[in-house]
Amino acid sequence: MSERESGILAQGAIPLTVQHVEEARRVLAKTLPRPPLYHYPGLSALLDAEVYVKHENHSPVGSFKARGALVAVTKALEAAPQDTGAALRGVVASSTGNHGLGVAYAGRQLGVSVTVYVPEGANPDKCRLIEQLGGHVVFHGPDLVSAALAAREAAMDSGRAYIDDGEDFWLQAGTGTIGAEIVEEQPDIEIIVLPTGGGALLGGAGLGAKSLNSHVRVVGAAAERAPGVYLSWRAGGKPVPPPYNDTFAEGLTQPLPTPRAMQLVAAVADDMVLVSEEAIKQAIVLLLEHTHNLAEGAGAAALAGALQLGPAIKGKKVAVVLTGGNITLETLREVLAG
Amino acid sequence: MSERESGILAQGAIPLTVQHVEEARRVLAKTLPRPPLYHYPGLSALLDAEVYVKHENHSPVGSFKARGALVAVTKALEAAPQDTGAALRGVVASSTGNHGLGVAYAGRQLGVSVTVYVPEGANPDKCRLIEQLGGHVVFHGPDLVSAALAAREAAMDSGRAYIDDGEDFWLQAGTGTIGAEIVEEQPDIEIIVLPTGGGALLGGAGLGAKSLNSHVRVVGAAAERAPGVYLSWRAGGKPVPPPYNDTFAEGLTQPLPTPRAMQLVAAVADDMVLVSEEAIKQAIVLLLEHTHNLAEGAGAAALAGALQLGPAIKGKKVAVVLTGGNITLETLREVLAG
Repeated sequence: MSERESGILAQGAIPLTVQHVEEARRVLAKTLPRPPLYHYPGLSALLDAEVYVKHENHSPVGSFKARGALVAVTKALEAAPQDTGAALRGVVASSTGNHGLGVAYAGRQLGVSVTVYVPEGANPDKCRLIEQLGGHVVFHGPDLVSAALAAREAAMDSGRAYIDDGEDFWLQAGTGTIGAEIVEEQPDIEIIVLPTGGGALLGGAGLGAKSLNSHVRVVGAAAERAPGVYLSWRAGGKPVPPPYNDTFAEGLTQPLPTPRAMQLVAAVADDMVLVSEEAIKQAIVLLLEHTHNLAEGAGAAALAGALQLGPAIKGKKVAVVLTGGNITLETLREVLAG
Repeated sequence: MSERESGILAQGAIPLTVQHVEEARRVLAKTLPRPPLYHYPGLSALLDAEVYVKHENHSPVGSFKARGALVAVTKALEAAPQDTGAALRGVVASSTGNHGLGVAYAGRQLGVSVTVYVPEGANPDKCRLIEQLGGHVVFHGPDLVSAALAAREAAMDSGRAYIDDGEDFWLQAGTGTIGAEIVEEQPDIEIIVLPTGGGALLGGAGLGAKSLNSHVRVVGAAAERAPGVYLSWRAGGKPVPPPYNDTFAEGLTQPLPTPRAMQLVAAVADDMVLVSEEAIKQAIVLLLEHTHNLAEGAGAAALAGALQLGPAIKGKKVAVVLTGGNITLETLREVLAG
């Protein structure tokens, strides 16, 4: 990290520190199998680099979101008043899908009731899975903002904890474990490319990676059709509302980056790229072909970003994070039909 | 196991024993990440059973074949004469793809040169991957039988070890670890369904499972269009050549089951089912939809078999083994186009 970055981190202006990432690792060591980091000769030939894929799609919920959720629900349980008898009434989340799935999984593992507010039109595969994990799905409003407002209100009214995707402290500490695991397994990794919607994963995983190797370059790949974090990063970390927020990769949408997420992104992201809808779809196909893994749009964005970096990563040791595989059959058919 | 079965095992008429499976587990504990066994609510609802999937597709070569190959090449290294200086000149295999990939991976991990004979028209994805892992691919003949004869001859002529898919002792011990891991993680599993081509996986994994829980039922799912093991099992273990051997699921083809494989299959398989080409394709789609994992034809056959068992597994705790995900884009497009 540069002096400026480590200065920010050391001053405590950013609440998330490497100690919190370490605490998250301790929680996850007991509760989650560790997804592998594999080298792929085919992708390496394609990118003229040494390419590794971190398989967050191998998680029990098919995305990285179980990490933060397990840490956040564990911490909510620890923080709940013990003297009331009922330690924790339940937790509420809002989500386009994967975050809700993560929280539902954590609730099931830890014995906590879970309600997830999703916007109308949310990915039906993910909603069904949330219910199958025992979570209660509430459809509310046209977008994530209105679903989130309703979720927060419902949590307050009923005395339940609200686990805010993008803002929750321990959620982000959970994402930090991804970066730490990559560097632990390949200590001389040079570049880590992460998909970014709201910036929490990029900031958290970037911090986790740099805590073990300060020389690793952390790059965010945002969708051209949801460029909020990209524009905010270019503005030095000041949240900028995106002019559009309609990428097919629903995991990358973000109506307005938060100051908290952007502060960490500004500190740890060395570069950012924007990837087109077409490039994301192409990356889904390349991952199918070369790794035989299914990626959702957000899950493929890091590979799309690495492809866009082109000559800048030539000959380097690069990790791309495949954040999730929860694509619908309908979208997969469209992508394969080209 | 029945008295007859345990009798056979105890008499040593079957060379593979639980001790060999234990030795394979010791080798793999050091060399291979352990693929997860996940519960899927969606598949459970569909089958009206408690359904788990063993994700052999999460292996570094995308199939279970790295297990046996790592054990077999490790044992070949141990057996090679130490006094010649060059401990092992290399190994030769013949394969429709996945076995070759497994051996190439093991060779790379253990520093041994690998040559793989494949029939003309073998899955190009798998052949490319073998080469990218440093293996040498030789196309030979119209089918696996002629490729295997050429491979064996080349190995003998050059003093290299031939690792015979379906016959190699340590390969099969490696497959035993799959059954043992499933029972270790879910000790009260009631039924394990395995795809079967030549029977080595069915026999080996079945033995591994029964070594830890003698009550578990082991069921093989063979392709209608490659029914060699099914017919041989019905004939009490006497190898019967199949009338056809042309399933699109190339990992399930087998021109003639071997006496060795059939002896163990006869001892440990409690039931077998034949699955149609259409049912296998449907199972690929169901795995995509409900688990977001890519399966090749052979990899989906166990789920197709479980669906065919229907009422027989209702309410039971069932594991289906997803043996591999190395399907070509072309085949995937065909399957999804329906």
